[in-house]
Amino acid sequence: MVTGKTKRNVIVGQAGGPTAAVNSSLAGVYHAAKNLGYSHVYGMLHGVQGLLENRYIDLADHLKTGLDLELLKRTPSAYLGSCRYTLPEINDDSALYEKLFSILDELETDLFIYIGGNDSMDTVRKLSDYAIITGSQIRFVGSPKTIDNDMILTDHTPGFGSAAKYIATSVKEAIRDGWSLELSKGQVLVIEIMGRDAGWLTGASALSRGEDCDGPDAIYLPEIPFDVEEFTTRCRNLLKKKNCVVMCVSEGIRTADGTYISEMENKESFTDVYGHRQLTGTARYLSGIVARECGCKTRAIEFSSLQRAAAHCASRTDIEEAYECGAASVKAADEGDSGKMVVMVRTSNDPYKITTDIKDVHKIANEVRYVPREWVNEAGDNVTEDFLRYVRPLIMGDIDPITVDGIPRHLYVPGYHDLL
Amino acid sequence: MVTGKTKRNVIVGQAGGPTAAVNSSLAGVYHAAKNLGYSHVYGMLHGVQGLLENRYIDLADHLKTGLDLELLKRTPSAYLGSCRYTLPEINDDSALYEKLFSILDELETDLFIYIGGNDSMDTVRKLSDYAIITGSQIRFVGSPKTIDNDMILTDHTPGFGSAAKYIATSVKEAIRDGWSLELSKGQVLVIEIMGRDAGWLTGASALSRGEDCDGPDAIYLPEIPFDVEEFTTRCRNLLKKKNCVVMCVSEGIRTADGTYISEMENKESFTDVYGHRQLTGTARYLSGIVARECGCKTRAIEFSSLQRAAAHCASRTDIEEAYECGAASVKAADEGDSGKMVVMVRTSNDPYKITTDIKDVHKIANEVRYVPREWVNEAGDNVTEDFLRYVRPLIMGDIDPITVDGIPRHLYVPGYHDLL
Repeated sequence: MVTGKTKRNVIVGQAGGPTAAVNSSLAGVYHAAKNLGYSHVYGMLHGVQGLLENRYIDLADHLKTGLDLELLKRTPSAYLGSCRYTLPEINDDSALYEKLFSILDELETDLFIYIGGNDSMDTVRKLSDYAIITGSQIRFVGSPKTIDNDMILTDHTPGFGSAAKYIATSVKEAIRDGWSLELSKGQVLVIEIMGRDAGWLTGASALSRGEDCDGPDAIYLPEIPFDVEEFTTRCRNLLKKKNCVVMCVSEGIRTADGTYISEMENKESFTDVYGHRQLTGTARYLSGIVARECGCKTRAIEFSSLQRAAAHCASRTDIEEAYECGAASVKAADEGDSGKMVVMVRTSNDPYKITTDIKDVHKIANEVRYVPREWVNEAGDNVTEDFLRYVRPLIMGDIDPITVDGIPRHLYVPGYHDLL
Repeated sequence: MVTGKTKRNVIVGQAGGPTAAVNSSLAGVYHAAKNLGYSHVYGMLHGVQGLLENRYIDLADHLKTGLDLELLKRTPSAYLGSCRYTLPEINDDSALYEKLFSILDELETDLFIYIGGNDSMDTVRKLSDYAIITGSQIRFVGSPKTIDNDMILTDHTPGFGSAAKYIATSVKEAIRDGWSLELSKGQVLVIEIMGRDAGWLTGASALSRGEDCDGPDAIYLPEIPFDVEEFTTRCRNLLKKKNCVVMCVSEGIRTADGTYISEMENKESFTDVYGHRQLTGTARYLSGIVARECGCKTRAIEFSSLQRAAAHCASRTDIEEAYECGAASVKAADEGDSGKMVVMVRTSNDPYKITTDIKDVHKIANEVRYVPREWVNEAGDNVTEDFLRYVRPLIMGDIDPITVDGIPRHLYVPGYHDLL
């Protein structure tokens, strides 16, 4: 605990791609900080990028009632705005660090909480290192967040369960939609799911499989080299047996030589500021090939940003765990941790039990956790029962939206829009 | 009422594009037929097309309990399978009609109920005409169904409300997702919504507008000629004021000379068996143009079949009205109507009250109901408050999915899959 002096302030930021659960972590941070007696809880707008421009809010102006907190837990996307900003190495630009720390000192910051994924944990790593070098007493702790579930040392990540639930639900509905097709009209449906390097979300499409649904006919993860010809042959064979063939593919699938399928369609590939390729068009490309090669009707569906924003279909488990991670990050920092990230540890799978722990952010930042090969079938085109046993508890439970005029209400404070 | 003899059997079919509510109408048909004392309720598989091949089921084998009926109401897509089959004119192929009626006689059919849209009502028209010509006592009544809401003489159509609710919810979530964007990163999001000729669904995206959301920045319906250059200019101007610009476009938008925007991208346009063009790629095309002309990041989202299959986000009002229409179609036929379709009449908007009536199918079949010009703003790029007052009651209320393992359960009877 911060002892021997009055507790001062906490600052919290959100970074990277938004999720349906990232604001629940923010709610957890706020509630825990207030409970622990901190004076102000500031929210940096657009993460450290905004903070460098002195852009922040006092969250007490936005979270006045318990109902506001409940709305925040049900609001998708990053309430504080997000950034994809890579801090320079300390030696390369110490002036920037001096500026950032002087802003933090100005705000009488005791604790700095950053909710984000692998890239964001790199920010926590650098800032906590700088604090050690300069003797700053500010503590830096990360709270995990990503729909991609690709962070190491944690059982899974907040945001993943809700995206997985949305994907499983929507794939099941799309499969059912296909069942209604006219007589003797074969169709191949290709569904594209997010996940640049790790196939966790694409694999979650198999959760649609159950007593009332066969699930996708095949599932292609980025971890397994993809072969367009094999894919087409598979479709052709399946069409002999089924009226509607459903193939789920990750946006990140690539051939054995590393060529992204999405690149085959669109030669202009975009690259974001982290150097990540912007992938899209994989399903469209494959459905075009299949239409030509198999002479059948095809449909390409991209879940696009819907899969990370669908708070109306969130997993209660996920929303509650996100809240718990946010709260745990404040508690850890309050108790003296810095340069750490909260992780989840599965102590039991049946019944499903999770506890939080804290790990060194130096070991987490910039790493990627892939779907283990043994959780993919031998043919490399489906996930195993072990994979499903791992994912299934994460989509359990619903968190009913608070609806106004028939659609979910999100947290909105007058003027909020202009802040971002 | 069918009097003077024992009531025999009812046969019901589903045709055209599936919806989230079409099975609720089927449940209404089944329940009403059983309540009115009919012996068997047969379901034709894949509409009249399957019936011509003697493909049908006895619904009592599938609907054994009240829970089965509840599941059916929550199951998207056409449970019986669908068809897009145009009956020939009677004079062109009377042998086909003879065959169909002999199958109906074999099944001791008193009532024939067809759940479908404009094209399907053409089937009801032809069959009821043939019955009059030949003196058949079978009565033919339609129950309306289409997400497109483009049928005349009815206040609205079952299936529309649920699709509208899904679209409003998803547009709102996508807009919120855009708010989290990095600092000073303008983006244009182009969302493509179903509706070949009528803009009801695209207009429903404006329901996302409220105290907590601005809604789309502009909405383009197929009723209003579309100008690509004006669209690009609009995006450019909006980008000066907003970080994330959101444009909702119908898949059916076309230029003043009638060229579909989707054709501009993809010269190979597909045509379905009714002669309808298969439209897709409108958002993709426009987002590509905007990226090039405005030099900004863009994202194209197609709701695709998700918008007609999203039973997890259905409107309770819609599901209940669909059920009521199904039941009313049986009652009308039982009372002697034939060559008619059930319609909904709004007797009051506040509080919202609906009653059913019955109209001549000859006046409905093959007509299209457009969004009235006065419900679109003068600039032609948004809907008016009158439009919203009309649509809002239709998305009210939720019908909670019955979930198993974290996702909605649909009605499934062993072997069902092989039937289709």
